[in-house]
Amino acid sequence: MATINDIAKYAGISIATVSRALNKPELVNADTRERVMQAAKKLNYFTNDKARQFNLKTKKLSLGVIIPYITSFYFGELYSGISRVAHENNIDLLLYELKSDNMAREGLTEAFSFAQRHLVDGVILASSHMPSEYDDLIEQLQMPVVLLLDAHESAKLPAFKVDDIRASFDAVAYLVSRGHRRIGMISALQTQRQERGEQLRLRGYKQAVDFYKLPYSHSFVVYGDMRFDDGYSAMKQLLAERDETGLTAVFAASDEMAIGAMRCIHDAGLRVPDDISVIGYDNLSVSNITTPKLTTIEQPFGQIGAEGARHIVKLLTEGEQLPEKGNFYMPYKIIERESVAENSASDK
Amino acid sequence: MATINDIAKYAGISIATVSRALNKPELVNADTRERVMQAAKKLNYFTNDKARQFNLKTKKLSLGVIIPYITSFYFGELYSGISRVAHENNIDLLLYELKSDNMAREGLTEAFSFAQRHLVDGVILASSHMPSEYDDLIEQLQMPVVLLLDAHESAKLPAFKVDDIRASFDAVAYLVSRGHRRIGMISALQTQRQERGEQLRLRGYKQAVDFYKLPYSHSFVVYGDMRFDDGYSAMKQLLAERDETGLTAVFAASDEMAIGAMRCIHDAGLRVPDDISVIGYDNLSVSNITTPKLTTIEQPFGQIGAEGARHIVKLLTEGEQLPEKGNFYMPYKIIERESVAENSASDK
Repeated sequence: MATINDIAKYAGISIATVSRALNKPELVNADTRERVMQAAKKLNYFTNDKARQFNLKTKKLSLGVIIPYITSFYFGELYSGISRVAHENNIDLLLYELKSDNMAREGLTEAFSFAQRHLVDGVILASSHMPSEYDDLIEQLQMPVVLLLDAHESAKLPAFKVDDIRASFDAVAYLVSRGHRRIGMISALQTQRQERGEQLRLRGYKQAVDFYKLPYSHSFVVYGDMRFDDGYSAMKQLLAERDETGLTAVFAASDEMAIGAMRCIHDAGLRVPDDISVIGYDNLSVSNITTPKLTTIEQPFGQIGAEGARHIVKLLTEGEQLPEKGNFYMPYKIIERESVAENSASDK
Repeated sequence: MATINDIAKYAGISIATVSRALNKPELVNADTRERVMQAAKKLNYFTNDKARQFNLKTKKLSLGVIIPYITSFYFGELYSGISRVAHENNIDLLLYELKSDNMAREGLTEAFSFAQRHLVDGVILASSHMPSEYDDLIEQLQMPVVLLLDAHESAKLPAFKVDDIRASFDAVAYLVSRGHRRIGMISALQTQRQERGEQLRLRGYKQAVDFYKLPYSHSFVVYGDMRFDDGYSAMKQLLAERDETGLTAVFAASDEMAIGAMRCIHDAGLRVPDDISVIGYDNLSVSNITTPKLTTIEQPFGQIGAEGARHIVKLLTEGEQLPEKGNFYMPYKIIERESVAENSASDK
């Protein structure tokens, strides 16, 4: 292991100054501190913990925020939550937008290299299912990582999110409580990675179908890629099979699909909620200005961002023994608006 | 002025190495280069231009992107435009969210300090009217600055935006072309800073009223704070005065207000566009999923971001003699959907 001597030599600074910089950093000027720090890092003088404590005394902390698709509807709210906590703690945020949603290894490698190039102290990784095969990248990063909105496959990292299965179960339970039994679902497309939040929603629906012993056949579920148009065409399919299924309500895995479904119902000459009730998932700001206004599941994106940020700040500043892994489930709620009605059909 | 000797001494590196690092930076390792560079900066060895050229050879460029309210609807598209150009040019982006929209001096000072702390090479400042009294801050920053979506009061900085007056004139002209003459406006609140984009829209409306000699009284214009609810209550006022004004169409200064107005018309038992036509401004993604779908003015946010970024990249990398000030107007267009109908009223 490197000694203070090595650092002094490497940095071209006297041993006494290096010692002072390491032990009483507040007594030496910022440039010297920085040079000592860089040398110490370079020579692996520090353990990570020591380096972090040194950082805390001498410089402003930074967090990297890595997120795919900042154009997604939840980005603003999620980032605002993170930002609020960062601001309270006098921490800089450096945002990095992942170029792909599928979390290719290359994209993640570039993102981590950005984080290292800009000397961040920890990383918040949002909305990216993290398969175990990337665990080596996380390890090489050598700094705390927190996940938001999605879980870590091997559950080695703390993840802040809503329990999609339970929330979806409750969406169906809500429809049941309003007298509906013939309930369709517009689900996310199912891919190999069945653990992604969107895909878990189908599992919640099916659990509720079992639990309440609701009528069910394959015609009750159609699939779409989460957007307005997908919801529209999915609903068309559901309407085409309605003679058989007798649907009175639909649960859509996203608000966009729910709004597309409502438009499809409208275009077919039927009314929401009088003929068919619709419940969505997301509580987009849009869902409050559609006609009728959409009843939906709200995920607390701001809170998810804030709690995730608070967790990593604690890891960095207090060195607390926090649980470093597992899912932290945040509270969701059902926002009741105008798109679900009491079912008065005969077979309820 | 500092000499190579001073740098060698300061950085604790031999004169020969310093000389090599400055003249053939590609021949020395990254750490040495960085140390030489920091020392040279510290000792004011570089003029800004020299430093920039040195930077170009040795490190990845970074741009600061300063923006108020990343929750605003246009942020994602604007940032994606900037991001695309940054990616093409292998440049890092560092985002900073201004905490206030009113561009208090303090907020801007903090943002610039973030930019300097993270060693960015240029700054893109979005959606922030820049009054002349902040010119000293811009000067102290000592790096290229480009404005997006808003103009510089003293017109000393390049600004990329839509010509709000012309676009609003054209929105009204479009209604006139569909046979409307009794046209109301839901305008942004007018404050002291009359040059802000939102407020210029009222000027475009008034120019069109004059140009086409449309009926007009104070009852034709109501004001709101740009959101859904504001549009709703503004429309209520317009409907209350409709006996007098005989409105057949409304131009709203934002899509949110337009959508609020449509809901108000719906709740009053009238139909859009059969009874009253509505045109918005923004082309929110929402406006394509309302019932009816909203006809509106589209600002090319992605293109505005991309052109602004391209401009600053040129300033940084090619040292081109670009015009460093003035407004660059980007093309807008009218998106025709379902909320405007041909007017068949008698007095057209």
